[in-house]
Amino acid sequence: MNCNTPTDVTFSFSGFAQRGGRTDHHADGWGIAFFEGAGLRHFVDHQSACDSPVAELIRRDPIKSRNVIAHIRKATQGAVALENCHPFVRELWGRYWVFAHNGNLENFHPNLHAGFRPVGATDSEQAFCWLMQELAKSHASVPTAQELTLTLRELTPRIARHGTFNFLLSNGQALWAHCSTQLYFVERKHPFAHAQLADEDLNIDFAQNTSASDKVAVVVTAPLTTNEEWTAFAPGQLRLFVDGASVG
Amino acid sequence: MNCNTPTDVTFSFSGFAQRGGRTDHHADGWGIAFFEGAGLRHFVDHQSACDSPVAELIRRDPIKSRNVIAHIRKATQGAVALENCHPFVRELWGRYWVFAHNGNLENFHPNLHAGFRPVGATDSEQAFCWLMQELAKSHASVPTAQELTLTLRELTPRIARHGTFNFLLSNGQALWAHCSTQLYFVERKHPFAHAQLADEDLNIDFAQNTSASDKVAVVVTAPLTTNEEWTAFAPGQLRLFVDGASVG
Repeated sequence: MNCNTPTDVTFSFSGFAQRGGRTDHHADGWGIAFFEGAGLRHFVDHQSACDSPVAELIRRDPIKSRNVIAHIRKATQGAVALENCHPFVRELWGRYWVFAHNGNLENFHPNLHAGFRPVGATDSEQAFCWLMQELAKSHASVPTAQELTLTLRELTPRIARHGTFNFLLSNGQALWAHCSTQLYFVERKHPFAHAQLADEDLNIDFAQNTSASDKVAVVVTAPLTTNEEWTAFAPGQLRLFVDGASVG
Repeated sequence: MNCNTPTDVTFSFSGFAQRGGRTDHHADGWGIAFFEGAGLRHFVDHQSACDSPVAELIRRDPIKSRNVIAHIRKATQGAVALENCHPFVRELWGRYWVFAHNGNLENFHPNLHAGFRPVGATDSEQAFCWLMQELAKSHASVPTAQELTLTLRELTPRIARHGTFNFLLSNGQALWAHCSTQLYFVERKHPFAHAQLADEDLNIDFAQNTSASDKVAVVVTAPLTTNEEWTAFAPGQLRLFVDGASVG
C-alpha cells in the first residue's frame, strides 16, 4: 500500500491474512512492514497469518502508515523459518529498504561481493541483496524515485530471466512494484465507495474514514475486493507509486 | 538475556517495562529484539513501554529465544520518533546484529565511509554504524565470539572517551556487554530459586519452568530483582556471554 496520508491497513489486511492458510495455501509464514517517517515497524512470523497472535494485534490495533509491504509465504526455496519470512529489510544510504517477492527463481546465483548478504536460504533474499548491491553501485546517495525507477528497469530483467519475479520494494518515500506473471493495483480516491472483501464477508464504506484529498494505492497478487476496478500489470512491467497514485 | 536454551523473558520484561514510564522516567519509546536461530523478531515503539500494545502482546504471548536485547529510551539526542528507538539492527556477514546503548556521547562524529549509515538522529545509531564498519574491516567473515571480543575491546574505548557508553550487542550466537558507568548481570542456573521483581509486586519460582541444565544470563542497567545476586561490571569492562554464562 502506498498513500498520500497515513492510512491503516485493517480492512485490506483482514482479507489478506485469510489467504495465509484459510482461503489460500500460503501458510509457511508471513510478514508486514510499516514505514513511519524514516522509521520502520517490521513484523515477521513463521506461523500462518490466519493463526498468528501478531496478525491479531495488527487487526485490532491499527497502525497508520504511508507505505506498507505485506507478504504471506508458500515455501519454494528455504525451510519454514523466521529468517526466510518476507519482507526483508536492509539499510542503504541511511534509509531502510523493504522487499517482498512472489515467485521462484531457478539457477540464480548472483555474485554478492559487497555489503549485502542473505541471512536465510531463499532465492528472494538473494535477489534483494543483489538489487541493493547494484543500486548502491549506481547512485552515491538516495536518488529521486524517478531515477531509481530507471535503474530498477535496467536491473530487474537480469533477475527476472531466472523465473517468476513479482516484487514490491519501498524506502518509505515511494513503492516500486514489478510484475513477471501476476500483479494488480487499485487507486482509491475521492469519491470513495463501498468495498466488499473477496476472502471474507466484510465490507467497508471508505467515505466514512477518509477526506476528499486522500489517495491510496493498493498493489496485490490477486484483487482483494469484488467490486472495485483492479488494473492488471503487464508482464515485465515495473510501476512506481508515489502519494497513492501510479506515476510511472 | 543470553541463554543455553530458548527461554521466555515474560518475568524480566514485566519489571523492565514498568521502568518505561511508571517506576522510571525512560518514557520516550522502547524496543526489543528476539533472535530465533538466524532469524529475528524486532519490535520498536515510540509509545512508552508501560502503555504500548506491542509490550502487552509480548507480556501475554511468550516468545522463546536464546538471545534477547531490550531497551527503554530517555531521549538525549534525536527526537521521540520510531527511527530513534533502540535496539538497532544491521546485517553483516549474512547475520543480523542488534545493538542497544545506554548513555550519551558528546562531540562524536565518526567517519562513516562504508556501508553502514544511521537512519535516525541518535549518537547511539552512529556508534553502532561505526562499530559495524570497523568490525567489517577487521574480519572477512563471522569470527568466533572470542575473536570478536578482542576486536571490540580495541574499538570500544575509541567511542567511550566521548561519554557514557553502556551497550549490548548480539548476533544471535553470543551477547557482548560493555560498561562505562553502570551495568549488572546475574547468572541463573540449577538449583533455581524464587525471584522477586524490584519494580512490581511479582515473584516467580524459576524451578517450576526450568530443567537442571538450563542457564540464563541477564544483563541490566539496574538489578531487576531484590533477592538475587547481581554482579556489577567494572567501568570500562566488556564481557562476553555464551550459552547463559559470562565467559570472558
